[in-house]
Amino acid sequence: MRLDSEIINSLGDIVGKDNVLMARESLEPYSHDETPGLSHLPDVVVKPKTAEEISKIMKLANEKEVPVTPRAGGTGLSGGAVPWLGGILMSFERMNRIKEIDTENAMAVVESGVIVQNLEEEAAKYGLFYPPDPASLDSCMIAGNVAECAGGARAFKYGVTRNYVKGMEVVLPQGEIIRLGGKLIKNVTGYSLMDLIVGSEGTLAIVTEVILKLLPLPEAKIDLLIPFNSIEQAVNTAVKIIKSGIVPATIELMEREAIKASERYLEKKTPFSDAEVHILVELDGKKENIEKEYEILGELALENGAIDVYVAEDKGEQDRVWEARRAISEALKSKSEIDHEDVVVPISEIPNLFRNLKELEKKYLLKIVCYGHVGDGNIHVNVLKETMEEKKWREIIPKLVREIFDIVVQRGGMISGEHGIGLAKKAYLPLALDSAQIELMKRIKIAFDPKNILNPGKIFDI
Amino acid sequence: MRLDSEIINSLGDIVGKDNVLMARESLEPYSHDETPGLSHLPDVVVKPKTAEEISKIMKLANEKEVPVTPRAGGTGLSGGAVPWLGGILMSFERMNRIKEIDTENAMAVVESGVIVQNLEEEAAKYGLFYPPDPASLDSCMIAGNVAECAGGARAFKYGVTRNYVKGMEVVLPQGEIIRLGGKLIKNVTGYSLMDLIVGSEGTLAIVTEVILKLLPLPEAKIDLLIPFNSIEQAVNTAVKIIKSGIVPATIELMEREAIKASERYLEKKTPFSDAEVHILVELDGKKENIEKEYEILGELALENGAIDVYVAEDKGEQDRVWEARRAISEALKSKSEIDHEDVVVPISEIPNLFRNLKELEKKYLLKIVCYGHVGDGNIHVNVLKETMEEKKWREIIPKLVREIFDIVVQRGGMISGEHGIGLAKKAYLPLALDSAQIELMKRIKIAFDPKNILNPGKIFDI
Repeated sequence: MRLDSEIINSLGDIVGKDNVLMARESLEPYSHDETPGLSHLPDVVVKPKTAEEISKIMKLANEKEVPVTPRAGGTGLSGGAVPWLGGILMSFERMNRIKEIDTENAMAVVESGVIVQNLEEEAAKYGLFYPPDPASLDSCMIAGNVAECAGGARAFKYGVTRNYVKGMEVVLPQGEIIRLGGKLIKNVTGYSLMDLIVGSEGTLAIVTEVILKLLPLPEAKIDLLIPFNSIEQAVNTAVKIIKSGIVPATIELMEREAIKASERYLEKKTPFSDAEVHILVELDGKKENIEKEYEILGELALENGAIDVYVAEDKGEQDRVWEARRAISEALKSKSEIDHEDVVVPISEIPNLFRNLKELEKKYLLKIVCYGHVGDGNIHVNVLKETMEEKKWREIIPKLVREIFDIVVQRGGMISGEHGIGLAKKAYLPLALDSAQIELMKRIKIAFDPKNILNPGKIFDI
Repeated sequence: MRLDSEIINSLGDIVGKDNVLMARESLEPYSHDETPGLSHLPDVVVKPKTAEEISKIMKLANEKEVPVTPRAGGTGLSGGAVPWLGGILMSFERMNRIKEIDTENAMAVVESGVIVQNLEEEAAKYGLFYPPDPASLDSCMIAGNVAECAGGARAFKYGVTRNYVKGMEVVLPQGEIIRLGGKLIKNVTGYSLMDLIVGSEGTLAIVTEVILKLLPLPEAKIDLLIPFNSIEQAVNTAVKIIKSGIVPATIELMEREAIKASERYLEKKTPFSDAEVHILVELDGKKENIEKEYEILGELALENGAIDVYVAEDKGEQDRVWEARRAISEALKSKSEIDHEDVVVPISEIPNLFRNLKELEKKYLLKIVCYGHVGDGNIHVNVLKETMEEKKWREIIPKLVREIFDIVVQRGGMISGEHGIGLAKKAYLPLALDSAQIELMKRIKIAFDPKNILNPGKIFDI
């Protein structure tokens, strides 16, 4: 349906006319996230300021049966924020207050539209630490992180967004405002709706406020960028680090093509960038401890075939290394059309996964570039189109992706570790989950959202 | 309904006649858990061995509309395993295999009926560590821990059961067997049914197998038992420890009456047991680190009014201290009829909570004895009946409990931190959660269990 002027007027009454966008050129930026090839214009963009406004919008949308797509930073990689069926796009950009850094309880209370890096920086002023760090942390928002259960590099030591969400205010699809949890470490008072909403990709409820657990800020950190001549050596070293008893904050892996793309994109050189593959290990904690630990891990890497160990001790060197890592996704996209996957397997299967991917590279004559969170078994697999003819690419990719996912599932893995299913992976969900399970998820969706108006068409079709 | 002989015969066909109990004296042990005052006989006890058998039982129970109550160790404290409507009691006692300690992935695969301490001991043989440690760990089972999202003392540092559950095999109420997650650190492939099932008190699905994350076994531990002359000093010291940057495994608190009851029950003396209150701090990690840390925390305690610091360095001393702590619940029950609560508040509210409880003690002329996980804000509040006349006790307790819960909720807390709602707290759930939220939970229950046959009558009535 198209939205009639009555609905538009009502939205204006709720959020103020200045916060309702209708012109095509103002709608365009809200038509896509960072997922290649997926976009759809909304009919209208609304920018609410409060849960009460959102509640009114949802009641109106229910009455009129209009789809509502919530949008946080728009940095998603599975199309979760794309308004696929048009309707109302709800942007959290005006809900960007860090309401409280509670030092007594080590908790932050933030609105849905707070940029993750802003929270991290604000917490640091009080000697506190918000660990989740998706690569897009300078532009992604908390509500999106909650929707996707965002991970990031530090998930190896610190876990994912779920581990930090302790309370929430949410608006249910029919407009009720409810509060879940609190500044509480433990809670088993009824079903954990909160843990169900985390990772539900904005399909079950609209998160308006989040209470997040903070940790003491680590005293110091050191980054080790370790080049290898073979993927096997790099992966084996990563596995040995995991088993060493020392727990780094991150164990990242980057193949040469990823580093090279990032170098070109940023126009900055990365140390040893000709090596086949790098692992990037960050240690954090007490200065005296991490100084001991990095010596041990450096030795371990050299014994296992590392070409060298580049130690980034000061902030400038560290920022340079992480800038290179975080730019990879953008850099690869700027170089070629890509297909981007986000698979996760048990750690022990990582060497096999890489072997299988190399076989697929040969079979399909397409370059496959991997990087990601090797310590978590979570690998971002990028297939580069490069010069392949468009028609052939479109024919081949679904087959290749299916093969990748079949391998991953056979190896005990899942098809998304931290980016979600959204629109992009919806067709493949039955490869990972059986129909009884998907049917149950659909019944849960309907229990929350009987008219299927909240972010419809994501994860599965009802 | 009573079960007819056709159903009984079918159950015998599924699990074998020896694993179907009907005689009243064999039913009695299955009629209650550790919650005072709650018991109801099942019509029949069945002891399945596999998920397939459980699937068949659930299909039969659905067809005949017979209630099924799953039971793990029977150590619960909210009546979750009491077969309140009779019907089938399903015991996991024959499903007690530790199927795998996977050292490559640091994961354990266990059947639902594995005793938690057995898992902990088995993992330790491989240098691995399963942290959740409810006080009943020598007799409680994994499936019960998953059902209640069990915590325990070490939750302060290591989190609760939810943080370790990475995969599951479950039987849905209508009999489908599904697998969730895997040996995976991250996963956002569809809704996290797993996180919803954890803490759902056995009402949404029957957990038959669990994949649990393990950590490296800490090299050493030291326990500090620290007596104080006032509750304020003890609580303030706990809060200062939390903010010190040092992260102990546990910060427990025990009031004198709790320690004294335990001493009498065990017939063993605890150091400084005449002190008003104790905190019990366990440090674990590298030996050299914890030796430094305990000096710092010991000083901090003495500066904040500690009478002394008893350092339990060897295993014998440590076991003695923890035996005293873990016996408290049983000891109090052996001394007097009690009402037992499991409230949780933000850490900053702990001093106020204690002040309010002291006021209630005076108002109701009933002894209130507290102990529990002060580091998590999770306090076990025990009201002792002692010599109060039965009629008056029954009249007063609901009022007193309501007052306690009102205080807790006003202070930003919840009415259960780790024991669950079950039967015991069901009447009080609306004090903590609004009706929109409870209604949504009921719709979720029905999405899983349309005929409401799985553990009916727990948490809320449908």
